[in-house]
Amino acid sequence: MNATEINQMLPWLLRRENVAVYQDGKVVIGDRRKFPFEKVFVSCASVEEVAKAIEDMVTQGGGPSIAAMYGMALAARQCAGKSAQNQKATLETARQRLTQTRPTNTSLARLLEKTMGLATEFVDHGADVESQLLAWIETYRDENYERYGKVGEYGASLIDDGDGVLTMCFAETSFLMSLALAKRAGKRIHVFTPETRPYLQGARLTAPSVHEIGVPVQIIGDNMPAYVLSQGKIQKYFTAADLVTLDGHVVNKIGTFQNAITAHYHGVPYFVYSGGADKKKPDRASIEIEERDPAEMKNCRGIPTTDQAIDAYFPAFDITPPHLVSGVVTQYGILNPYDLKRYFGEKGLL
Amino acid sequence: MNATEINQMLPWLLRRENVAVYQDGKVVIGDRRKFPFEKVFVSCASVEEVAKAIEDMVTQGGGPSIAAMYGMALAARQCAGKSAQNQKATLETARQRLTQTRPTNTSLARLLEKTMGLATEFVDHGADVESQLLAWIETYRDENYERYGKVGEYGASLIDDGDGVLTMCFAETSFLMSLALAKRAGKRIHVFTPETRPYLQGARLTAPSVHEIGVPVQIIGDNMPAYVLSQGKIQKYFTAADLVTLDGHVVNKIGTFQNAITAHYHGVPYFVYSGGADKKKPDRASIEIEERDPAEMKNCRGIPTTDQAIDAYFPAFDITPPHLVSGVVTQYGILNPYDLKRYFGEKGLL
Repeated sequence: MNATEINQMLPWLLRRENVAVYQDGKVVIGDRRKFPFEKVFVSCASVEEVAKAIEDMVTQGGGPSIAAMYGMALAARQCAGKSAQNQKATLETARQRLTQTRPTNTSLARLLEKTMGLATEFVDHGADVESQLLAWIETYRDENYERYGKVGEYGASLIDDGDGVLTMCFAETSFLMSLALAKRAGKRIHVFTPETRPYLQGARLTAPSVHEIGVPVQIIGDNMPAYVLSQGKIQKYFTAADLVTLDGHVVNKIGTFQNAITAHYHGVPYFVYSGGADKKKPDRASIEIEERDPAEMKNCRGIPTTDQAIDAYFPAFDITPPHLVSGVVTQYGILNPYDLKRYFGEKGLL
Repeated sequence: MNATEINQMLPWLLRRENVAVYQDGKVVIGDRRKFPFEKVFVSCASVEEVAKAIEDMVTQGGGPSIAAMYGMALAARQCAGKSAQNQKATLETARQRLTQTRPTNTSLARLLEKTMGLATEFVDHGADVESQLLAWIETYRDENYERYGKVGEYGASLIDDGDGVLTMCFAETSFLMSLALAKRAGKRIHVFTPETRPYLQGARLTAPSVHEIGVPVQIIGDNMPAYVLSQGKIQKYFTAADLVTLDGHVVNKIGTFQNAITAHYHGVPYFVYSGGADKKKPDRASIEIEERDPAEMKNCRGIPTTDQAIDAYFPAFDITPPHLVSGVVTQYGILNPYDLKRYFGEKGLL
């Protein structure tokens, strides 16, 4: 399948045109903070506005990378016609500012370095840097969508007719593609999505997206997966991953780990979507879990949930050990978590 | 300890005077729906108003029984001086109406039957039924507080200096007494309370109550217990129970079960407070789990959490099997869940 075919199978939130686009010197980003209550966009006319939008969580998942790369095209537009030295300085300043927006997102940093390298070459060749960058970003984006399609097919192969599927947070394009492809193959599926407090990504992003592609879905509380598992209503558990270590530990939105324990208790397999293991993260000890402001745990969509004098604790991610992971769904196939080092490690097969 | 000493150790929400009191022919009930945002009371001048307040969830836990019994005193006041037949008819109508308020709460029905029996005797003896009932209700209530004190002591004996304690929902008086007594004995404790969606009893009731008695407490998401357990911050898990079967299955607010699985996974014991096993509930098959309106799962304090067109699922309780229960904390001591039938069954020891 090509990127356009894949795009058409996806729900509103995940379509290329609603993640982030470049229009007349503006980066226009779909605002996931307001979805599904409003389908609105944030329009950014400068690199600083793009950086601020990413910092303010306007977009997430794969969105920040696309928005930031378009931010580089915006920088190129703003210094077009200036000296090569001036252009390179402007682009480098933009790269640094955009990289800062998500200090722990190593793939954003890597993509911005790649974009900077290409931009430097375009400047040296006296090319129209803005349009050359835009062409490259769109190629990158479409190749990514094709990869999502391939990973989605591996995921769909794990889903059987009649399956109940548990997920957590918003597993994005690969997961939605798996559901869409399983449905297209005539498999009946029912999805349970925990709401994912405090930011409700499960209730706000996952549930409406699954509903939109015509797959039955029910929102449950984050306190309910084990009971629904005990009723025999769930046969597979799927999530995305923010990071997978070389020894098979999965870092993802908090709650992923306890669902994996209770799925295991009930004999239900857990599959995780990932680009692969992170070469720089050998093991659990190399992971640092972000602890966010406790105040965020005492509100729900801006409404206080308790007396604000009471303390709270908000670790944003958790770590699932490999013995609870049945398979890692990658573009290279479905890998055993204990095999990741062999593929992705120093001198690995990939 | 006597009831007054126990009352003084308890936080605002659980004190006798804030649960429900009888004042000048009115039943005044502490409004737990508004706590901790407001400390207000609902004043009921008729049996119907008391019944409505109980149905509208103004109070919960032990509150409905006390409020309903005071409702019987209110009925007695309203028919005072009438014929014995008239008085008995008025009281019986009140008993039926008040029993209806919580159809599944067998202890409320049992207490109202007992109150009705006593009221009938008072009528037959030509006594002042209202004041006789009030005296009896206050004796019953104070004996109950003394029982809470005793159970609280058993619970406190399970807590070690330096313990992190996980709970779920609002485990009420016995749990708070355990914390207060452990603290008084010089034990340092730290409590983690999941917020307990959708009604936030953990965030709204438990956390402020634990904070009030001077024990450090942090609210976490319902998706966080396993991660906090994995950090080694939790040594004991305590909850109340809505029901315990003769074969040791624990029915409590949804989330209790998955916390018990993840506590077990981390080698942390789970203790449950209970009056004892229910003679009429032999096993898991005899339990019916209340499934509430899915709409309740799509809001938080009245604010929508998603597009209201999306479906949800809201089982209100779950079932924890006895192999995950380390002990049942009762007024008779800390019992093994597999021993309950021997104590509470037909021809049991108790």
